[in-house]
Amino acid sequence: MEDKGRSKTEVFRQLKIFKKKDMTHLSGKILGSMCTCPHPIGLKAYHMFLESNLGDPGLFKGTKTMEKEVISLLGDLLGKQDIYGHIITGGTEANIMAMRSARNFAMEKNPKIKDPEIIVPKSAHFSFKKAADMLCLNIIEAQLDNEYKVDVNSIKELLSKNTVAVVAVAGTTELGKIDPVEEISHICYGNNIYLHVDAAFGGYSIPFLTEMGYEFPKFDFGLRGVCSITIDPHKMGLAPIPTGGILFREKKYLEAMSVETPYLTEDRQSTLVGTRTGASTAATWALIKYLGREGYKTVSDQCMKITKLLYNGIIESGFEVVTEPQLNIIAFKSKKVSVDELAYKLENLGWAVSKSSYPRAIRVIVMPHIKEEHVKVFIEDLNSLDL
Amino acid sequence: MEDKGRSKTEVFRQLKIFKKKDMTHLSGKILGSMCTCPHPIGLKAYHMFLESNLGDPGLFKGTKTMEKEVISLLGDLLGKQDIYGHIITGGTEANIMAMRSARNFAMEKNPKIKDPEIIVPKSAHFSFKKAADMLCLNIIEAQLDNEYKVDVNSIKELLSKNTVAVVAVAGTTELGKIDPVEEISHICYGNNIYLHVDAAFGGYSIPFLTEMGYEFPKFDFGLRGVCSITIDPHKMGLAPIPTGGILFREKKYLEAMSVETPYLTEDRQSTLVGTRTGASTAATWALIKYLGREGYKTVSDQCMKITKLLYNGIIESGFEVVTEPQLNIIAFKSKKVSVDELAYKLENLGWAVSKSSYPRAIRVIVMPHIKEEHVKVFIEDLNSLDL
Repeated sequence: MEDKGRSKTEVFRQLKIFKKKDMTHLSGKILGSMCTCPHPIGLKAYHMFLESNLGDPGLFKGTKTMEKEVISLLGDLLGKQDIYGHIITGGTEANIMAMRSARNFAMEKNPKIKDPEIIVPKSAHFSFKKAADMLCLNIIEAQLDNEYKVDVNSIKELLSKNTVAVVAVAGTTELGKIDPVEEISHICYGNNIYLHVDAAFGGYSIPFLTEMGYEFPKFDFGLRGVCSITIDPHKMGLAPIPTGGILFREKKYLEAMSVETPYLTEDRQSTLVGTRTGASTAATWALIKYLGREGYKTVSDQCMKITKLLYNGIIESGFEVVTEPQLNIIAFKSKKVSVDELAYKLENLGWAVSKSSYPRAIRVIVMPHIKEEHVKVFIEDLNSLDL
Repeated sequence: MEDKGRSKTEVFRQLKIFKKKDMTHLSGKILGSMCTCPHPIGLKAYHMFLESNLGDPGLFKGTKTMEKEVISLLGDLLGKQDIYGHIITGGTEANIMAMRSARNFAMEKNPKIKDPEIIVPKSAHFSFKKAADMLCLNIIEAQLDNEYKVDVNSIKELLSKNTVAVVAVAGTTELGKIDPVEEISHICYGNNIYLHVDAAFGGYSIPFLTEMGYEFPKFDFGLRGVCSITIDPHKMGLAPIPTGGILFREKKYLEAMSVETPYLTEDRQSTLVGTRTGASTAATWALIKYLGREGYKTVSDQCMKITKLLYNGIIESGFEVVTEPQLNIIAFKSKKVSVDELAYKLENLGWAVSKSSYPRAIRVIVMPHIKEEHVKVFIEDLNSLDL
């Protein structure tokens, strides 16, 4: 570290150089991320509450009131208004919190469990592997059906006396698929097993699209077996990073993992993170109020329309789509070259695509920053590859 | 959630109402928090990089380069430039990461460990209780000496074949005490046991104050037993929340907890959080460059001077300071009324003090937002209590 500070001008000159090496969502070139351009209203609200710390809520009572309202608004969106939860850093913290709660709750109820297990779809996000490592859980993978949704029979077969949680996904990370949560809920409720739904991606679009007439399976608190849901405002909710959400059906699930906070303005804390920005809550609140259901419907619907456009373009260009898209994610491959080679060629043209692992394919997420004109250029580039 | 969105004016009118219910650091009334007003240069840099996601660093190569530089700069500040680490959400994530790494590392090396234990000072932050619950660790508390620093003999006695980590603190949360890390490092190095130093609070001030002639015990990577250090830019580093830092002496400690990330632009991930804002890195980088050692020296020195002023005022007003302050934290009590009663009276006068749990006392942290004029009013208020 240098002794003397540099001038403001010099510091920002250098920051701009770093910034130039970053990609921007506005370019339309980021095709492989579930994040997007934060909405300006969310950014402004975020900035306004940057001083606020929800880890010490007695000091920031306004932000705390806002968080309670946000949780209730998200609950309302997902089938149950009177729920409990927090605005946190993202889907990973949310999924780890859910697994921690489920483990503590099950092991408290049944001290005979010595080797707790969680059953997760093969398509689940890697945060469940993180959770398993951290929380000393055995992770058992349930198989997928031919549409890459979890096979309910596989879950049934894997249930054991050590199962502390089952996970279902509403919008898988790689393919955007929605698991048959209703059937899984039925099984879990009947067997008194905790069911967590990871709707980090789909939570902010499935309800809006459903209201517009799109057909999706049920996945939310309307199903009585669902104990908790992950929903990420910093994905389809357009909030800045870090903004995640974890919702629990009952307060006891938050309490199952709370620790004492000796010197703060709240007695117990259940989040992973201690000091916790209130800015994320403010951004989520402002965007819900500013956009309303109508605004979010437009956002989701637009993404679905552009997905359809991209889908047609990919097919017409002679590529193979690995599965019918359910949400705004398309995975495809070439009939002629490998996935790695195709990715390499697209990267050379400036496209940041990502690769799904199961099945191996090029994966494009049509987030709100992807516009019709970007898709047109992408399709032209696909055609120009001369494979 | 409402169907129709509200106007921008209406949304921000309501946000302002929430904001009014929050306290502000600028008021000088927040005496019980380790957070402070973020520095405007840090805020500006933060805002500039809000789009950046270090969970997917291939997309944000500029931010990634900045993070590497920041980690090296922090290492340089703490005795070793070639270290490994990340800018994360705060001290809790950092402490959990350190415990996770220590546990995985020890249990890989010695599969005979079945009931892993961590030894932490009785004064350690409650995040270690969180870590213990999450990571299936037994937490063993080491006793403190009569200055509320950890008793090295107590640590020695508690070491067992199950010990996977020892924790020392450089700036305890409640009293700002610095543990005798040099002696603890000697013991841990000799016994091949992982030593983590929680310098969330002291990391950004002890090195600067030491250069100015203040006397403090050694606590950093200069001691060969120290395997990792927590240092929080969002405390004495003046960065916005969420900005924490975790530093590891060797890469193997990060690797011990990395999980595969199938579809992202990096292969493995060691942080708790997945999607991770690059804004925190930018703020930390900008503040280090803008303030330099000289700027941070002024900040820390100023806090120590105001602490001294407050200390004298408290003594002169007839209150009892529970221990000589080592950093910018003072804990005190009345000879006449209980701690709860004193806190209640101060709260009625608008002061947000906090209470330490061991020993029970009123706890004031003289963060950079506490100015001389605030201390004067506080002392006047103490005298006006007429106890």
